[in-house]
Amino acid sequence: MKAQNARGTRDFSPEEVKKRNFIIQTIQKHFERYGFLPIETPAIENLSTLTGKYGEEGDQLLFKILNSRLHESKNKDVLKQEFEKMLEKPYNSELITERALRYDLTVPFARYVSQYRHTITFPFKRYQIQPVWRADRPQKGRYREFVQCDADVVGTNSLLMEIELVSLINDAFEELFPKETIVLKLNNRKILQGIAEWMKVSDHFYSFVGIIDRLDKIDYSEFEKFLKNELSNINAQNSDAFVEIIINYKTKEKEANTTIENIQLWNSLMNDLLEKSNSEDIKTGVDEMKYVLDRIDKEDLSIILQPDISLARGLNYYTGMIFEAKVLQSKFDADVIGSSILGGGRYDNLTGIFDFPGVSGVGISFGIDRIYDVMEALHLFDDKKLNIYPAEILLVYLSNEDEKYCLSMAKRLRKQGIRVDIYHQVDKLKKVMEYADKKKYPYVGIVGEEERINGLVSLKNMQTKQQEKISFENLVQQLNATK
Amino acid sequence: MKAQNARGTRDFSPEEVKKRNFIIQTIQKHFERYGFLPIETPAIENLSTLTGKYGEEGDQLLFKILNSRLHESKNKDVLKQEFEKMLEKPYNSELITERALRYDLTVPFARYVSQYRHTITFPFKRYQIQPVWRADRPQKGRYREFVQCDADVVGTNSLLMEIELVSLINDAFEELFPKETIVLKLNNRKILQGIAEWMKVSDHFYSFVGIIDRLDKIDYSEFEKFLKNELSNINAQNSDAFVEIIINYKTKEKEANTTIENIQLWNSLMNDLLEKSNSEDIKTGVDEMKYVLDRIDKEDLSIILQPDISLARGLNYYTGMIFEAKVLQSKFDADVIGSSILGGGRYDNLTGIFDFPGVSGVGISFGIDRIYDVMEALHLFDDKKLNIYPAEILLVYLSNEDEKYCLSMAKRLRKQGIRVDIYHQVDKLKKVMEYADKKKYPYVGIVGEEERINGLVSLKNMQTKQQEKISFENLVQQLNATK
Repeated sequence: MKAQNARGTRDFSPEEVKKRNFIIQTIQKHFERYGFLPIETPAIENLSTLTGKYGEEGDQLLFKILNSRLHESKNKDVLKQEFEKMLEKPYNSELITERALRYDLTVPFARYVSQYRHTITFPFKRYQIQPVWRADRPQKGRYREFVQCDADVVGTNSLLMEIELVSLINDAFEELFPKETIVLKLNNRKILQGIAEWMKVSDHFYSFVGIIDRLDKIDYSEFEKFLKNELSNINAQNSDAFVEIIINYKTKEKEANTTIENIQLWNSLMNDLLEKSNSEDIKTGVDEMKYVLDRIDKEDLSIILQPDISLARGLNYYTGMIFEAKVLQSKFDADVIGSSILGGGRYDNLTGIFDFPGVSGVGISFGIDRIYDVMEALHLFDDKKLNIYPAEILLVYLSNEDEKYCLSMAKRLRKQGIRVDIYHQVDKLKKVMEYADKKKYPYVGIVGEEERINGLVSLKNMQTKQQEKISFENLVQQLNATK
Repeated sequence: MKAQNARGTRDFSPEEVKKRNFIIQTIQKHFERYGFLPIETPAIENLSTLTGKYGEEGDQLLFKILNSRLHESKNKDVLKQEFEKMLEKPYNSELITERALRYDLTVPFARYVSQYRHTITFPFKRYQIQPVWRADRPQKGRYREFVQCDADVVGTNSLLMEIELVSLINDAFEELFPKETIVLKLNNRKILQGIAEWMKVSDHFYSFVGIIDRLDKIDYSEFEKFLKNELSNINAQNSDAFVEIIINYKTKEKEANTTIENIQLWNSLMNDLLEKSNSEDIKTGVDEMKYVLDRIDKEDLSIILQPDISLARGLNYYTGMIFEAKVLQSKFDADVIGSSILGGGRYDNLTGIFDFPGVSGVGISFGIDRIYDVMEALHLFDDKKLNIYPAEILLVYLSNEDEKYCLSMAKRLRKQGIRVDIYHQVDKLKKVMEYADKKKYPYVGIVGEEERINGLVSLKNMQTKQQEKISFENLVQQLNATK
């Protein structure tokens, strides 16, 4: 049988695992510094927990699990009928499938919070780092199984949480990327709702959000035409005034490069909007944004903040502040431009579907796979720091008499926290050295009769190829310096 | 809708995650000290990779994934026919399901080694810590989703690997359990094969292994009758001689308590067996055991070793040394006695099914869930060391004017690696303190006008309830001592 992983899934080699774990552990460290606690939920959820939460398209992308022991069921005719219904159109039969793999970590978290509401002290800050599954058609950079890395606070609508999350995002990206590589876009759904109301398109709010969302992806030359056309399609009022404001904004946008400049430009845009629209909703959204932006220590940021009217985020459940982090375009070639490496926002009623209404929350989700791709493209992984080799030293014994001495040396080194491998058998030294080179051990420690009798080891530095006989104490010192 | 996790699955609270991670990280640390490198494989495998590897019962326990877009298929009549076949008896239709969740980590590892054989330098030592899924009927201590924690070496038949694995097992359990709490049983399948041959039951080897396996679970009074009866059922030759040896062994077994006594008793048993059977296979197995036992530093073990003729292990693919760790019976009440917390062994041809024959390997698998249960029962988790509270300090600001000062203090503390939470709003101090007590923060730091003006914080020790105004430097010092 051919050995082959399933389509759209990935195996990770030791080097890949170490690099991925470096990203995950960095983010996890900062989650913990901000007071988030870890939880874990199972990969398998009841199908009813998941369906209807991600829109029709999302429901199609659930990996559904076939009920076990179908053949033991007594209702074979009923089963056949149910199966035929499934063939005709998208339809879930509990007799055939009643479970699925989780699609994200947010809905299982909402389920968790609702299920354990009586034992949780709110506000509750949790982080969760686990894989999720989507039956997407596989393509470059899109996988059927990938890890999400989420932090959420539920049980308070305090904007302090948004301020803290922005600060957390900054701290995590500061450790992963050079200064000013990442831009964090911010917007507020209340501003978008206010504009939609002013333009009398609240009934088509998600269509309107879709138009706004595409502003970011459209070339400047086609911009005015696109906007006018789309707005007239949904019968928007006040669209001339809106287009004028946006066009004015777009002409200036290219000149703003720093957080301060971005905020100034956004302020003037909002002033125009407020003056023309006189919308209370827009004002509330703008005030929330200003409250958050005012309290962030802008002098000491590694990321660049950009309040951005065109940020919309796909998920329907957002109701307040929304976030999205991207790599700054100028830093990269076309391949990684535009892919979001973090998203998030405030939602006001996510647990309502589980009979636990009125719980406001806000959360962020780091995209490990995309962060990995960007870090690889920018050569940001430090191979030495990641200890990609199997151990600091490979010990080799020259005859069977030396085996026990070698084993006891390995034991003493490991007690000191040093990673030690032992070559698996007595072999020609040339062959051992080739093996050690291939596996990139920094040192080989050779143990023969002379070393054994005098309590020494012949230490070979695999980079310089120099070799010297040294004592155990000196060995520990040198290897500790390697770690 | 009721919020409910799927039957047989578990949610893990922050406290449970921290305890589980403590176990996992301890084992992982020792895997790394012995030169094992991490890999990861996807949860979803092609069904053909998994079926036929775990026996008929195992195949029944696979969680199979329904193909997506069934309703788009053109062959509806064929699909219906296939589904009817599935209803009649266990049968996999690739049209309905072609993927499943992995059942263990060993088969995916064999698939990985075979798939990437050209880029791997052998011997290859890998560890893998990931969940697996089994559609078992849920019961106490048995879950449908659980984590396995495996280390394997493939590409050499050197017994040094067995020696190193025993040493690794000792080091990991030394850190998790008090001295002499865990007994590691060892046996060699070659000894069992030799006995089976001597007794002319090689054709029913797995039935014979089943009998041997039950020796451990049978009361002494019924022992002789059971053994004679079962052996006569499979037409065993030389069964009187065998029963005599085993009975002789069983009468002495209770007196052996230490590794040295266990080995001595086993030696005499093996001498009897070799004398009466004159079997070459038994001799090979005994020699391998002796080679391994001789090279282990028995003076410095935390676990107790017990070579045990009745250890058989369920999996058919083992061909050499086999391992199983249990809690020493006398240490525990009946509830946790007898549950294995680690298993493993040597296999000679696991990758053969993936067209990569002749690769010998040996591996072990730690049972995280059972280790957790035993540690809980023995109160071995150190809550303080696990930092189960959300942060070292909860900062509170008394008015909106103090918010920025509070945020900047949080930032400076986090830069020092201290975990800091900020209470989400201005509130009555009594309410804040109740919240802090519930969440078990060791310290609350209060920031009001006076503290802000003088650059101080009022630090309350939540255990002693004492409160004092201190400088930032003193604060860092005190909190670092808490970590």
